[in-house]
Amino acid sequence: MKFTHESLPQRVRFATGEAAAAVAAEVKTLGAQRVMVIAGEREAEIAARVTADVPVVLHHDEVVMHVPVAVAERARERAAEAGADALVCVGGGSTTGLAKAVALTTGLPIVAVPTTYAGSEATDVWGLTSDGTKRTGVDRGVLPRSVVYDATLLTSLPGEMSVASGLNALAHCVDSMWGPRVDPIDQVNAAEGIRGLAAGLPLVADDSASVDGVEQTLYGAYLAAVAFASAGSGMHHKICHVLGGMFDLPHAQTHAVVLPHVLAFNAPSAPEAETRMAAAFGAASAVEGLARLRTRLSAPKALKDYGMPEDGIAAAVAPILAAIPDNNPTPVTEENLTALLTAAWAGEEN
Amino acid sequence: MKFTHESLPQRVRFATGEAAAAVAAEVKTLGAQRVMVIAGEREAEIAARVTADVPVVLHHDEVVMHVPVAVAERARERAAEAGADALVCVGGGSTTGLAKAVALTTGLPIVAVPTTYAGSEATDVWGLTSDGTKRTGVDRGVLPRSVVYDATLLTSLPGEMSVASGLNALAHCVDSMWGPRVDPIDQVNAAEGIRGLAAGLPLVADDSASVDGVEQTLYGAYLAAVAFASAGSGMHHKICHVLGGMFDLPHAQTHAVVLPHVLAFNAPSAPEAETRMAAAFGAASAVEGLARLRTRLSAPKALKDYGMPEDGIAAAVAPILAAIPDNNPTPVTEENLTALLTAAWAGEEN
Repeated sequence: MKFTHESLPQRVRFATGEAAAAVAAEVKTLGAQRVMVIAGEREAEIAARVTADVPVVLHHDEVVMHVPVAVAERARERAAEAGADALVCVGGGSTTGLAKAVALTTGLPIVAVPTTYAGSEATDVWGLTSDGTKRTGVDRGVLPRSVVYDATLLTSLPGEMSVASGLNALAHCVDSMWGPRVDPIDQVNAAEGIRGLAAGLPLVADDSASVDGVEQTLYGAYLAAVAFASAGSGMHHKICHVLGGMFDLPHAQTHAVVLPHVLAFNAPSAPEAETRMAAAFGAASAVEGLARLRTRLSAPKALKDYGMPEDGIAAAVAPILAAIPDNNPTPVTEENLTALLTAAWAGEEN
Repeated sequence: MKFTHESLPQRVRFATGEAAAAVAAEVKTLGAQRVMVIAGEREAEIAARVTADVPVVLHHDEVVMHVPVAVAERARERAAEAGADALVCVGGGSTTGLAKAVALTTGLPIVAVPTTYAGSEATDVWGLTSDGTKRTGVDRGVLPRSVVYDATLLTSLPGEMSVASGLNALAHCVDSMWGPRVDPIDQVNAAEGIRGLAAGLPLVADDSASVDGVEQTLYGAYLAAVAFASAGSGMHHKICHVLGGMFDLPHAQTHAVVLPHVLAFNAPSAPEAETRMAAAFGAASAVEGLARLRTRLSAPKALKDYGMPEDGIAAAVAPILAAIPDNNPTPVTEENLTALLTAAWAGEEN
């Protein structure tokens, strides 16, 4: 047992139906008097509601995917002009990302109110894009001081999108189990994330307005982000990253298809992770638990259905082999990786 | 699902056999150049070893149980005189407590190297004693920045003491499950603590020098402290506190005797906690898991064996009733509490 685990300072409130009161309390705890609210146009109404009891000096709604540097610069200038002393961001990953970009240079504290399952709010990772290239970094100052999760803010998300997003979070949990920096505490968080997602996603798939389902899914997605940020990207994310880049595959579907194959590949060599995941799924094995959940959610099955050519398998092997972390439980060879990709391409059962 | 959970910023290193290198790395990360080492005389040799690669300006060895104010004052003065810019404490709860007392007024960062299973290193709680009265408080500044756990530093602890201390940590885990501020994340940490303690303590009982046993026990004790500091004292600790105070009972034995009775009392009303604990014990039920572990460890069975008079049961009921948190899973009455205390007094099986 040799590891280093770093816990990040953050207060997380699960406050279903009570976001406004919770946000006001968090802003008060910060002692903030001049709040800049960051929320895209689609979230404007929600943002107005959840910041109703907060001293707002500025509403900023220029939110752009992947946080272009110019967009970040304008937000920073407006924060300075308004003399803001805190940021409240209401939205998904791009909105939280913009708040982080402002915090990065200004040091302003963030209260994040997520309206998707993206998970950026639980990490100290920032990203900025310029000329089509994304730069990312880690900075303690961009970690939101508080996160307010209110499931009622997510009940209008389309069910299909929620399930896709929840399956991404599930992939974060599973891949955390053998990430390059994984430690037992990451595994505990990842397993609890699986528990939440396995409980919540079927409810959300049946009824996207299920508050109970959204709550459990949010809880799972939060823990997925905590675990993944600490453990780092494992085999699953390396495969998806290479395939996505080479064949322009859709992100969510690629993850959903590849995950069971990586789990079946690694689980026999990672007995402790397997035991934790099986318990979290409430199944006899992790592989069986994930298969059951995938069936319940009608998850996508084959990469060939999403535009990957069959001869892409051979082309992808070398770059994937080069990217997989050394600590991957099952040693990866050209042969077993080809078999894995072939099964994922064809949609074979494990 | 309504809760607020606060994660505290701390880096934890499990570095068996490598404390000196880990301490040096942590001190370097702090940028510290003038380290004050706090360690009692018994730990002097260990402290010298684990701080061998650290720029030490002062060794301070006046460590007294419960941190008397005068002792804290002298340590603060010496820290100021020496111009210390960081504290490394090597020892148990009293040693960590003294470092916290110095940090409280000076703001100096702490690197803690525990040599017992006390757990103080994982919390932001400080305590100071004057005129026989202990004052405690919570201050973010006293939380050690880093903790270095090296199991080889604890292999010379007497086995009996290690088991008693580990059972105390186990009581922290179990009682966290229904502490007044409990949330699901506390429950996850507490369950993982149970897992570590249930794995480690039998090994330590068989061979107090078992590095594997000590590692698992340390890991469990760390998580016990994290969970308990967040969830707060539940029914078990209220009972032990009242009984200990009224009848001057030995601390460790009182906890060991009372715990199975509180678990049997609350488990039927706390199904989620029960499921988590049963899984952590690897048993069909939490009650069975604890009973098996207690048998394996020859844990004490009856309060009457430790000097509690039979008529003390009736006398203790009212103060205990007044102290038990409102959120206790099974509603407590004079009648069922009397039955619980009677069983614990007589040593009846559950």
